[in-house]
Amino acid sequence: MNDIQVMNRAADNIRILAASMVEKAKSGHPGGAMGGADFVNVLFSEFLVYDPENPAWEGRDRFFLDPGHMSPMLYAVLALSGKFTLDELQRFRQWGSPTPGHPEVNVARGIENTSGPLGQGHAYAVGAAIAAKFLEARLGREVMGQTIYAFISDGGIQEEISQGAGRVAGTLGLDNLIMFYDANNVQLSTTVEEVTSENVAMKYEAWGWKVITIDGNDADQIRRALREAKAETERPTLIIGRTVMGKGARTADGQSFENKVSTHGQPLSAAGVSIERTIRGLGGDPAEPFAIFPEVAELYARRREELKGIMAERRAAKEAWAKANPEKAEKMARWFAGELPAIDWAAIEQKANQPTRGASATVLGVLASRVENMICASADLSNSDKTDGFLKKTHAFRKGDFSGAFFQAGVAELTMACVCIGMALHGGVVAACGTFFVFSDYMKPALRMAALMQLPVKFIWTHDAFRVGEDGPTHEPVEQEAQVRLLEKLKNHAGRDSMRVLRPADSAETTVAWKLAMENRETPTALILSRQNVNDLPAQGNRYEEALGAEKGAYILNEDAQPDVVLVASGSEVSTLVDGAALLRAEGVKVRIVSAPSEGLFKSQSADYQAAVLPAGVPTFGLTAGLPVTLEGLVNTHDGKGRVWGLGSFGYSAPYKVLDEKLGFTGQNVYQQVKTLLGK
Amino acid sequence: MNDIQVMNRAADNIRILAASMVEKAKSGHPGGAMGGADFVNVLFSEFLVYDPENPAWEGRDRFFLDPGHMSPMLYAVLALSGKFTLDELQRFRQWGSPTPGHPEVNVARGIENTSGPLGQGHAYAVGAAIAAKFLEARLGREVMGQTIYAFISDGGIQEEISQGAGRVAGTLGLDNLIMFYDANNVQLSTTVEEVTSENVAMKYEAWGWKVITIDGNDADQIRRALREAKAETERPTLIIGRTVMGKGARTADGQSFENKVSTHGQPLSAAGVSIERTIRGLGGDPAEPFAIFPEVAELYARRREELKGIMAERRAAKEAWAKANPEKAEKMARWFAGELPAIDWAAIEQKANQPTRGASATVLGVLASRVENMICASADLSNSDKTDGFLKKTHAFRKGDFSGAFFQAGVAELTMACVCIGMALHGGVVAACGTFFVFSDYMKPALRMAALMQLPVKFIWTHDAFRVGEDGPTHEPVEQEAQVRLLEKLKNHAGRDSMRVLRPADSAETTVAWKLAMENRETPTALILSRQNVNDLPAQGNRYEEALGAEKGAYILNEDAQPDVVLVASGSEVSTLVDGAALLRAEGVKVRIVSAPSEGLFKSQSADYQAAVLPAGVPTFGLTAGLPVTLEGLVNTHDGKGRVWGLGSFGYSAPYKVLDEKLGFTGQNVYQQVKTLLGK
Repeated sequence: MNDIQVMNRAADNIRILAASMVEKAKSGHPGGAMGGADFVNVLFSEFLVYDPENPAWEGRDRFFLDPGHMSPMLYAVLALSGKFTLDELQRFRQWGSPTPGHPEVNVARGIENTSGPLGQGHAYAVGAAIAAKFLEARLGREVMGQTIYAFISDGGIQEEISQGAGRVAGTLGLDNLIMFYDANNVQLSTTVEEVTSENVAMKYEAWGWKVITIDGNDADQIRRALREAKAETERPTLIIGRTVMGKGARTADGQSFENKVSTHGQPLSAAGVSIERTIRGLGGDPAEPFAIFPEVAELYARRREELKGIMAERRAAKEAWAKANPEKAEKMARWFAGELPAIDWAAIEQKANQPTRGASATVLGVLASRVENMICASADLSNSDKTDGFLKKTHAFRKGDFSGAFFQAGVAELTMACVCIGMALHGGVVAACGTFFVFSDYMKPALRMAALMQLPVKFIWTHDAFRVGEDGPTHEPVEQEAQVRLLEKLKNHAGRDSMRVLRPADSAETTVAWKLAMENRETPTALILSRQNVNDLPAQGNRYEEALGAEKGAYILNEDAQPDVVLVASGSEVSTLVDGAALLRAEGVKVRIVSAPSEGLFKSQSADYQAAVLPAGVPTFGLTAGLPVTLEGLVNTHDGKGRVWGLGSFGYSAPYKVLDEKLGFTGQNVYQQVKTLLGK
Repeated sequence: MNDIQVMNRAADNIRILAASMVEKAKSGHPGGAMGGADFVNVLFSEFLVYDPENPAWEGRDRFFLDPGHMSPMLYAVLALSGKFTLDELQRFRQWGSPTPGHPEVNVARGIENTSGPLGQGHAYAVGAAIAAKFLEARLGREVMGQTIYAFISDGGIQEEISQGAGRVAGTLGLDNLIMFYDANNVQLSTTVEEVTSENVAMKYEAWGWKVITIDGNDADQIRRALREAKAETERPTLIIGRTVMGKGARTADGQSFENKVSTHGQPLSAAGVSIERTIRGLGGDPAEPFAIFPEVAELYARRREELKGIMAERRAAKEAWAKANPEKAEKMARWFAGELPAIDWAAIEQKANQPTRGASATVLGVLASRVENMICASADLSNSDKTDGFLKKTHAFRKGDFSGAFFQAGVAELTMACVCIGMALHGGVVAACGTFFVFSDYMKPALRMAALMQLPVKFIWTHDAFRVGEDGPTHEPVEQEAQVRLLEKLKNHAGRDSMRVLRPADSAETTVAWKLAMENRETPTALILSRQNVNDLPAQGNRYEEALGAEKGAYILNEDAQPDVVLVASGSEVSTLVDGAALLRAEGVKVRIVSAPSEGLFKSQSADYQAAVLPAGVPTFGLTAGLPVTLEGLVNTHDGKGRVWGLGSFGYSAPYKVLDEKLGFTGQNVYQQVKTLLGK
């Protein structure tokens, strides 16, 4: 058997495994997996560099799958590579198996990202390629010369985010990014040409990519394209591979059943294919489809040996590098371990009564200096979301220059979020990104994935309420806080709140919120910040020390003995409560004020602590610039003793102090509402 | 003064008005407005065809502004056109004024769409252009020959949705769409070249657009480009106009202050511009900036006269057409009045125990036949979200053929939503679109805008819970129902729930839900539907008649006298309650079962009705496949008498019946949980 025959045999092996997995699970997507098999076979058997003995090796090439429904193809090639057993392939899509319907990130198994929602995966690859460039600029090519591979399908190419990913990769000249576009002209419900006539190659060229078009089922063409792409030093490369959907599928009478929409999303047999004829045609044994052909096993065994040789060289090179660069080596170890340098949070000085976005900028300035592996991004709002606090200490990425640490993402919120996710998946860096809170809507699909993958990306959202003012309802978040806190209520598969959401009440709490965000390496963290000035909250002693109460999610800011009423809020509404409390106290009402930056964190405290802060039975008044439901997890509004004043409608365009008056967000209205609640 | 001098004078007039509005409001975006003034002036004074006496005229050309922050430009040119007074311009961004910070749809004032979140506006224009083609195919060019204009900025071009809008418009050959790209190379926080090196012209050509590049501050070039675009009969046209940010801005010493990032988002004076020198340089009187120059007033008066002449012709042509086509004329009147043909909902036959998505398909088949002006779309899932129930009765749009009524949107959920919004804004059509419920995340930014604009788009979301099964957590909605119901809790500016959200419990309720959706012409409606089979709910009499209880948002499905417990759910969980109730009743527990497809609709019923269905004090058990909080507006979980069983974490990949068992969504678990609740 010559080289190409072996390669085709291996691709056929992947096709058989993929089709058989779907067949056995009675569920899944065989057609695409069969078409893409040749590419992943060439990639994994000849190009992808990884350490068979240390899957988490920082210098590994990374493969990001965008179309998660093509998981059978990925599991199959990873089985050839020794990462999955044939038994595990047979438990595809079953409870508790390591082979779920869409791949879930598992570096030990060779799975770099969770995928499923199309388009996101290749944007993660762009993020990983940026992280690799960033780290290369700091540590050197000797240890950070990895290539980032991405695999995208017709569906992913159509997703809107391809605009952001394509633009960013081209603009930044990510020559370490190679993307294979599996162009099989079939999507879930139609052929591709029924929904698009776009010239994909021309579009990517317009974005500044190198484009190579090949027969994506031809091992030699794939190999040559990959070599050419690896040699490219200016641009990312798109390899457009024309492939055959359901390659090898046959009916019972031996007719081809290729290029059919019906093989996209169901077992081949359900589409009218003879699985027996198909497997036989592909050179397998229908009675024992879950098998690896001897010559294919040999191909991958040979690759394993090659990789051992490559790794020996790489390890030697790294050792030499570490000897010559002990400081860098030490940094690299810390960065990839996710260690944070010591930060004297208490020493961070904040201006009085500033917007919390301003307080965030102060902290970001400190982080830019102290956390050398931190990258901050903004979707064209750095001077408004105040990520410029970070930017002022560094400069933005440019093609050929990744010595800076700021990513100007352009007006592309979802792309920015996915790029930051990709950076986190790559490892070695801390990623944060900012925009207006109302635009968190655009990021929701990515937030969900960051939450599911348990990635510690920091999301900075400013202009947190109707106090955006003149910009009007399109820019005024109302339902967004309740919306993002749904992810705080949703547990991840490790049993933790899938996202930490913090809305600090003043500058000191903002410092504490950033402390929590940086210390949280287990889930994403959101920081929700004000546009407008916020009065510093009153302190009995040191305000920062007292603001550390935020670490419990909610805490008593101050109180009178045996309070008649508890007032609770988050963000800038806490200072409005302080104003209202002064009016109430002037009349002898005994008040407790609670600041509650994180409902999720509070609910994770002991029942005793929760009851001590928000006791049942005591009248409780909540104030939120969001929908009233935002606080209904903390205030019992069912029993007549609890009341929430919130914003029940879209906002309006007017100066925010006018809106405060019109909408009842004043100390005076707090006073009146509480009087009513107390029946006075 | 020659023609071009007058045109420049008019553009300068717009510049002065725009800058002065921002100056007076002390807030806003003057720079872009000053650069784009020449284009809108040429468009409004020479090209845009509308009826000065009937702003809602169906045949009008429509102008969609994408960058809402350029509102001063729009208000200014509309003031020249007689749609706003100078006094109204002076109340820019103030409480209660008709000139909010970002434009809010107001056809009487010439504002076709609410804008602000970049990118959406031009996608609405694509939708309007499709609606115009659809109506032209049915009614004729005599009455539906309008041109759709869009105006986009550097920021909008960067938004991911430009990929979807560009592809769709090119693929469908929307030659009735002309978009001006105001390329001033400045965005909010940087110059454009700092964040993108893409070749915009080449990209749009790749999408199949005609592209014309001009000096966007040159009236004659604009005019010629518009003529060329109007003559195009195959493709949409992009006019790339290179413009000058802050055109005419000067410092106190007379230096140019053009092309500055700092004039993007604040009053010119705050950026360091002398407003006095600038206005003088533009030929205005700084002491009286809110003025219309006599020659400009004359230009627009002349245009008004021209339009009267054009309208006289158009009206005559329409009358002749109506005489020749009385049936079409009658249809056209009905369609634009938003009238629905009579539909015998009760007569719609549903298969027993089918998925609610299947029941939806049945209704869609009826609607496809009965509602001739309805358009249905799917984001590449028509055979899965069962919008193919509609598709089977028609065919998809194709370039040059809009005789069908189905829009294959491709894998582009946000684009699809915005295109449907654009159809609704155009008027004359009913728009619906489908995808998986988990992907409603991608549509959230558009849902919010549809809700704000009070547009009756129908959103069809299937695969509504973890019962997606094998596809796993990326495809299993958990927090989505609670999320979209936030829009049901949020009021629009008319005081109504900004969205109607319906999750029907069986086939009969699905028919009723569609009835409600079609009858709701005041807000968007969401239908949340199951993938899996759902047992028809038991009926005392006629199930459809009883399912009409859904019109009250929640209703008693059946009950024992003086129930010990109330069971409440929506969607397929109701039938699980029925199973649990059987077990409870077998032991003598008296049960009431409540189906609650819409919390919002229920909360809008009388307090008496609400108390009659869900009485306080009676133990209540809620079951939801979403987060428990999904039902906490209906079940009081604070007092120990209410309990919700929901899904607190991301889902898992496994057959859905396995998940039902593992996650506790069985009659048996309902029985056990209720026993625990009742302390038995």
